[in-house]
Amino acid sequence: MLPELTKGGGGMVYRLGLVGLGQIAQKQHLPAIAANPDFALVAAASLDGSAPGIPVYRDHLAMLAAHPEIEAVVICTPPRARRQVAVDALMEGKHVMLEKPPAATLGEFAHIAAVAAAQNRVLHATWHSQYNPAVDRMRDLLAGQSIAAMRMEWSENFHQFHPGQRWIWDAGGFGVFDMAINGLSILARIFDSVPFVLSADLRVPSDADLPIAAEVRFGLGDGSAPLTASFDWDWIGEPKREVTVTTGAGRVLALTESGRRLTVDGIVLIDGDRGEYRDIYCHFAELLRNGVSVLDATPLQLVADIMLQGKPVAVRPVGA
Amino acid sequence: MLPELTKGGGGMVYRLGLVGLGQIAQKQHLPAIAANPDFALVAAASLDGSAPGIPVYRDHLAMLAAHPEIEAVVICTPPRARRQVAVDALMEGKHVMLEKPPAATLGEFAHIAAVAAAQNRVLHATWHSQYNPAVDRMRDLLAGQSIAAMRMEWSENFHQFHPGQRWIWDAGGFGVFDMAINGLSILARIFDSVPFVLSADLRVPSDADLPIAAEVRFGLGDGSAPLTASFDWDWIGEPKREVTVTTGAGRVLALTESGRRLTVDGIVLIDGDRGEYRDIYCHFAELLRNGVSVLDATPLQLVADIMLQGKPVAVRPVGA
Repeated sequence: MLPELTKGGGGMVYRLGLVGLGQIAQKQHLPAIAANPDFALVAAASLDGSAPGIPVYRDHLAMLAAHPEIEAVVICTPPRARRQVAVDALMEGKHVMLEKPPAATLGEFAHIAAVAAAQNRVLHATWHSQYNPAVDRMRDLLAGQSIAAMRMEWSENFHQFHPGQRWIWDAGGFGVFDMAINGLSILARIFDSVPFVLSADLRVPSDADLPIAAEVRFGLGDGSAPLTASFDWDWIGEPKREVTVTTGAGRVLALTESGRRLTVDGIVLIDGDRGEYRDIYCHFAELLRNGVSVLDATPLQLVADIMLQGKPVAVRPVGA
Repeated sequence: MLPELTKGGGGMVYRLGLVGLGQIAQKQHLPAIAANPDFALVAAASLDGSAPGIPVYRDHLAMLAAHPEIEAVVICTPPRARRQVAVDALMEGKHVMLEKPPAATLGEFAHIAAVAAAQNRVLHATWHSQYNPAVDRMRDLLAGQSIAAMRMEWSENFHQFHPGQRWIWDAGGFGVFDMAINGLSILARIFDSVPFVLSADLRVPSDADLPIAAEVRFGLGDGSAPLTASFDWDWIGEPKREVTVTTGAGRVLALTESGRRLTVDGIVLIDGDRGEYRDIYCHFAELLRNGVSVLDATPLQLVADIMLQGKPVAVRPVGA
């Protein structure tokens, strides 16, 4: 369980450096930092992005050299760049927050975690979709229940949400799992034990190294309950980001709108606002105050297992 | 470190059931069990194999039902079948030994391990290439050393060693990693910390779901030393199963013949016999006497990371 989030109030303000000024930094991190009195953003590093009111350096080393007052570094680069930035920051004595996924591989994540432990710094590997009250409530309701079935659908259109982001399709860029890992991060939290991958069908565009869509079958317990997920970045229509679980007792729990809304047998229990990044920064402040790291590799491991088990089939080019 | 292996001598004989009578069972497990006085093989399960002097059942459940005296189950099936057999055996109160890889996915392995812990049974996930004195000696010699370079080559011909084993090429069958994981299991042991995957090129036959060859680049520490591996199941000529490490001090350690032979700067330190499976069963007896499990997912995680990072390129059919 994620801890209860409390406001700091201790008067301590943590000075942040942010690395990577792409879409997720602009849309989520910059506003969330600006809204949180526990943090002050002093500088950023990016090859081509900009941020209002702070200096932007060409790389993280230049940023760290120019701003020794930085206490924590937030890393929003594409996954393959994260290990080097994280390790450099940790070796300079900085705490680190990582956007999801925390690294390009499980081995890199383990390496970053080992460096953080050796340097006695806080490492916060975030999974933003986990920061939803409806997710926690679903977990509470499923605790101790037998599971009869699960159906997850995480479908949206790549070109609508990530126009031009070619790196996603090149080896190491995660393909559809760049977004599907949000659903998987919820899957990793709502059950008493984590479902395991049984098999997967992968649709790989002819101009991509990675799938644009995947159908995955999971097991839980004796593996007999039907647990399936459909991840689709070639989806036309309203995005669907939802998971429905039927318990052995016949109750139907539906978590929709990317973890924001929970219904049980059709009755709305939670219809929350989207406070994910606000809560991430509240949590980070608490971790910094208490000197505690949060390191969950499970969603990344689920992607790795899907790639290990998956049957690839070629489909038409994505054209990114 | 694997413990020093000692002969039992306690007079206790463990009764075994063996599941899967394919090539590895016939060539390695049956002779190793027959040669070890700590074990008695009482039955086996296989769809089409046979074993001299013992009854063979069509599946593991029939075997377990007919032989309640079985205390431990050795699982030599293809990877995708292992979880169900292991969990069924553990739930019947049996200890379990797993051939490598211990499961088809990291999640399945974690599930098996959780069941073993809950049932308080011994689980021995074996990596046979680790059972070589030369591997342990290389690890001792590299302890505390800086690493300047590593080159691993694991090359043999699929058709020579696995004629007709089509399951290897279907999703979940591991492809070249069925054999490359032996090299990776050595990689996971000889360094103070485990190298992480940086990138990989995968050659995938047009009639296969999985690569027949892979070139992998690893990192260690700051990631600057060149650490590379070539895994090739399309190799013509004498098999090569070797890894050469150059230390920062310029010493060259060469582990050849699948972990059997170690030279340092050209001088032979160890030129051992192939006692891998003999030592596995000595180790298993010790684990059973002491009630200790051995669970290392690292080589499997390295394969998952390679698949996560790998750039696939289509090559000619394997024709299996």
